Amino acid sequence: MIGGGQLARMLALAAAPLGVRVLAFDPAPDACTQSVAPVQQADFDDLAALHVFAERCEFITFDFENVSAPALDELSATRPVRPNARALALTQDRLSEKLLFTRLGIGVAEFVQIATHDDVRAIPASFKFPAILKTRRFGYDGKGQAKVPSVSALESSFIELGEVPCVLESRVRFERELSLIAVRSADGEMQSYPLVENIHVDGILSASLAPACVSDELALQARDYARLLADALGYTGVFAIEFFQVGGRLLANEVAPRVHNSGHWTIEGAETSQFENHIRAVTGLPLGSPAARGVSCMLNWIGELPDVRAALAVLGLHWHDYDKEPRAGRKVGHATITAPDFDQLAQRLMIVGSALGRETQVQPIIDAIHARG
Amino acid sequence: MIGGGQLARMLALAAAPLGVRVLAFDPAPDACTQSVAPVQQADFDDLAALHVFAERCEFITFDFENVSAPALDELSATRPVRPNARALALTQDRLSEKLLFTRLGIGVAEFVQIATHDDVRAIPASFKFPAILKTRRFGYDGKGQAKVPSVSALESSFIELGEVPCVLESRVRFERELSLIAVRSADGEMQSYPLVENIHVDGILSASLAPACVSDELALQARDYARLLADALGYTGVFAIEFFQVGGRLLANEVAPRVHNSGHWTIEGAETSQFENHIRAVTGLPLGSPAARGVSCMLNWIGELPDVRAALAVLGLHWHDYDKEPRAGRKVGHATITAPDFDQLAQRLMIVGSALGRETQVQPIIDAIHARG
Repeated sequence: MIGGGQLARMLALAAAPLGVRVLAFDPAPDACTQSVAPVQQADFDDLAALHVFAERCEFITFDFENVSAPALDELSATRPVRPNARALALTQDRLSEKLLFTRLGIGVAEFVQIATHDDVRAIPASFKFPAILKTRRFGYDGKGQAKVPSVSALESSFIELGEVPCVLESRVRFERELSLIAVRSADGEMQSYPLVENIHVDGILSASLAPACVSDELALQARDYARLLADALGYTGVFAIEFFQVGGRLLANEVAPRVHNSGHWTIEGAETSQFENHIRAVTGLPLGSPAARGVSCMLNWIGELPDVRAALAVLGLHWHDYDKEPRAGRKVGHATITAPDFDQLAQRLMIVGSALGRETQVQPIIDAIHARG
Repeated sequence: MIGGGQLARMLALAAAPLGVRVLAFDPAPDACTQSVAPVQQADFDDLAALHVFAERCEFITFDFENVSAPALDELSATRPVRPNARALALTQDRLSEKLLFTRLGIGVAEFVQIATHDDVRAIPASFKFPAILKTRRFGYDGKGQAKVPSVSALESSFIELGEVPCVLESRVRFERELSLIAVRSADGEMQSYPLVENIHVDGILSASLAPACVSDELALQARDYARLLADALGYTGVFAIEFFQVGGRLLANEVAPRVHNSGHWTIEGAETSQFENHIRAVTGLPLGSPAARGVSCMLNWIGELPDVRAALAVLGLHWHDYDKEPRAGRKVGHATITAPDFDQLAQRLMIVGSALGRETQVQPIIDAIHARG
């Protein structure tokens, strides 16, 4: 497992009952996976260390997308690397990703490449602002992004982001943000979890509702997109596609080539968690059912944990402390609240909100539940 | 965590999301907890090592009942030991346990103490055979027991068991074996899981059905017994009571002062697993709901694991490999099959039985499902 953050930690916890031992690889001396699995400490670009690591493993996977794709490609000569380096490389680059979406007939917001100041000046008059300028590579949780209210602000945004290759996207007036978690086995078997509705605050996921209340058509469209994409990439493992819902349509925003924050609810809320299914896919075991068990809401704990005693007193609440030091903007844990139906989920969320002083965080989910058709 | 076997392993896996780090203490160099938590390797009677261990911990608990109660009592001067040493000492001794049951008005099979050859000769004529002679201490999984078909065989059984202090119990013609898993917090809050029906083969648990199909009266009686017992012992943590159902009555067989094999189904089959609730109780966190989620059957894997691929292909099957070397009679893993209702559970068990060649193991559970009122 290249990476030793909370995703690796939850993957290791899911791997143990399958009899699969995880060895993590992370430069941080305090990688939070270390309390549940051994961690080899070395820099991600230390190729010699990566080779030693590969020697100790039967299969190689990763828990975050900013791993070096060429290094992974090199390791794949000695060990199965899942997902493959090509899929990683493609999803690391917002431009390649959008071009692939387009080629596969998957809707995306209007976009244009901004690599140079010439590109800034050559923006077509028809391009719709406001827009968002995003670096092609190394963006996550709202980092590497700048809001561009009008064409006149583009130049300064480009400079602000360091004049690195970027993609300019029209801002979409979406009704909802949705995501799909899916898993594909090495021999092409595919399973998709129900669509999830996501609430972001300041570019970071705040809450997810699963299943999202969507039409069968939309659910089917999302699953079709996931299948097209995974087959095109020869993908093995779990991945997530983030969508904007615009009218009755889905526009793909981005792909994460890994287990995803919007899939954390699957630990208690699905027959098989995304973490277990990723481990199954990577190690060549049969995939498990992605069916939901009741309904769930995942709440992210950003910066610091709320009061654990107050939280655990709430019926249906499941606690996940990542064993990380509190720090502003850092994901330090989450909770999943499960319930047999949406009405009971809304009730439990009201209790969670007031018990933890998190009314603002739960309200959009309660609203989404009340707004369902 | 004194002990580093599969119970400690599953406790450690349940502790991690609560932000609780487990340190295990075990003499075995290959204790199976070591792949998920650190293990301090030393003999259970190495008091100096136990003191070093206690220094490293905030709370002390154990995963098996043959820990030294006096040693635990000594450690309790420096750290909270949960459950307490008195509860452990009492449940380590079959005679004390039966005397406590009797004092609390909890039904037990007819029994008599056999400590000497004089006791053998002094058996009352009214005592009903066949019977079972059990050592007062250090018995588990059918060990330390001998069948005694008639009074004439008692002397040789006593010699066979090493002439150590024993209890002779009349064999009960029971309809079913049931168990109750319950948890009590340090401040006396109590939660009980639904009664479970157990199938033993050669003295070792083979399968559990949860919830057992029992009358409300029986369920209530079991809960009352658990409450009486836990209060009498000032108990903190999870414990199990094994019962025989005889007519409409419950006769208590024994108490296990720890998480129990017949509670493994709670990982997927209950709102909160027995492992998580034990950790919550020991560390002073609020208890979680013990309510069942659907219905479940736990199948023990004794000696060796069945084919994992065939198993994971079955809908609703959850796999638990303890990462232990196969050995005859050894518990090396289990699977829990969950379903929304008993009919679907029976169907899934038929599939499991034939897919794994375990028809004999699943049949008693299928029979129990069909026999329900």
